[in-house]
Amino acid sequence: MSQAPADSVVPVGSIDIQVRVRYAECDPMGVVHHSVYPIWMELARTDLLRQGGVSYRELEARGVGFVVARMSLRYRKPARYDDTLRVRCVSLPCAGVKVEHDYEILRDSELLTTAQTTLVCVDLKTGRPQPIPPGIFGR
Amino acid sequence: MSQAPADSVVPVGSIDIQVRVRYAECDPMGVVHHSVYPIWMELARTDLLRQGGVSYRELEARGVGFVVARMSLRYRKPARYDDTLRVRCVSLPCAGVKVEHDYEILRDSELLTTAQTTLVCVDLKTGRPQPIPPGIFGR
Amino acid sequence: MSQAPADSVVPVGSIDIQVRVRYAECDPMGVVHHSVYPIWMELARTDLLRQGGVSYRELEARGVGFVVARMSLRYRKPARYDDTLRVRCVSLPCAGVKVEHDYEILRDSELLTTAQTTLVCVDLKTGRPQPIPPGIFGR
Amino acid sequence: MSQAPADSVVPVGSIDIQVRVRYAECDPMGVVHHSVYPIWMELARTDLLRQGGVSYRELEARGVGFVVARMSLRYRKPARYDDTLRVRCVSLPCAGVKVEHDYEILRDSELLTTAQTTLVCVDLKTGRPQPIPPGIFGR
Repeated sequence: MSQAPADSVVPVGSIDIQVRVRYAECDPMGVVHHSVYPIWMELARTDLLRQGGVSYRELEARGVGFVVARMSLRYRKPARYDDTLRVRCVSLPCAGVKVEHDYEILRDSELLTTAQTTLVCVDLKTGRPQPIPPGIFGR
Repeated sequence: MSQAPADSVVPVGSIDIQVRVRYAECDPMGVVHHSVYPIWMELARTDLLRQGGVSYRELEARGVGFVVARMSLRYRKPARYDDTLRVRCVSLPCAGVKVEHDYEILRDSELLTTAQTTLVCVDLKTGRPQPIPPGIFGR
Repeated sequence: MSQAPADSVVPVGSIDIQVRVRYAECDPMGVVHHSVYPIWMELARTDLLRQGGVSYRELEARGVGFVVARMSLRYRKPARYDDTLRVRCVSLPCAGVKVEHDYEILRDSELLTTAQTTLVCVDLKTGRPQPIPPGIFGR
Repeated sequence: MSQAPADSVVPVGSIDIQVRVRYAECDPMGVVHHSVYPIWMELARTDLLRQGGVSYRELEARGVGFVVARMSLRYRKPARYDDTLRVRCVSLPCAGVKVEHDYEILRDSELLTTAQTTLVCVDLKTGRPQPIPPGIFGR
């Protein structure tokens, strides 16, 4: 990765978490409802933060929060009840108040869903954007 | 109501609200998942409060909250996607920090579910129970 | 609309629905969790279909379903508990198996969220894409 | 257990599972919304079935389902975001078409919630109650 040109995007951290699909997460088609994936993505993102030594709960206790500003998903294949899935979350380098993450949701080696989010760091007292504190998401 | 025997329970208010079943509220059996009914019951209970001139949002802004201490449900018949249901909520006389509600969930005249809840009024700053303020749930 | 250039996108239908924010839809920040908006978008999309004389429930009974293939959202401002929101859904002309919708979520005249979805029409028996039947989403 | 009087209720199986509280499961009070506990109870119940060698997914594929007929919960203390909880599920002896489960939800040794459910076994084709098949929930 040392040859990467200066403007390429080099991940600053990544994690794979496992989730087992809950019955209540599935809809009458027998597949996971599309509104559930953002919840799993949040689990992976939070565990990536934890892996870096920071708990999101403690962050909020210190008055620092992250809000989702943009989110996009591409659903390629459905997930089903009781499937064991891997949610892979990659953190891209953050700049100022924003941080981007890429996601892949897989069943074994089968890619089911890809997604991206952009988070904005906020001061929980004022609700205003603030620079991401050092030590978080690769800063 | 003055003739009511001391131990009979006379409702102090009631409301009927309509809900249309959302797709995401149904499970692979094609019926509403049992965890959804408490959310509708909360809608009815809140609208009953509003009918009495009190908004739960304003109540929380004043530092007064209600937490569910007990809940029981009996599911007789399933509700399905796109059904239009009536959620009937009856408030029983409250005493001190507690208030009880009874619920019936119907599709036309067909009774699908019955339920009860017991709420406790809390001071949101301390988390401690506090007497239900006058003017709320028939007090 | 006959003067519209061949490649411009002319909506083929639109609807505004109202939703009141439920308590269970809000998170510890006191705002609507970002995973809830897709559920409201689905409500608006389904009501747009109904406005055109087609019930999604009947469509499924006929073996025709729609699955979300892509979804993107931009969250500008938070919605809060008990807010009454408008969800505006616009259907774009469909081609073959796909249909796109644009969404705006507003509180009075304040734009909170914009979103897009791409749906694919599927044969519910085989799970395979199929052409959108005439009479649906402007076909 | 052989000395147990004929009419006492002797559990036929039990399990402890762990759940970590998700952000989206918490409400503006900063605690888990009361509608979430039934979802965790279902996870524990399903894992208890799995521990006995039966997967609920396979059971449904065979045309056998379980529906919740009654549910009651007592909420003693709130659970919070990121808490690691234990959900203990105990299966009571089933009789005919019904099976009862007791639940305790704990944070370390602190008891937060107790609950009970009654499930009815159904034939998924007809929706009618049917005797619980041998080998399930201690039968």
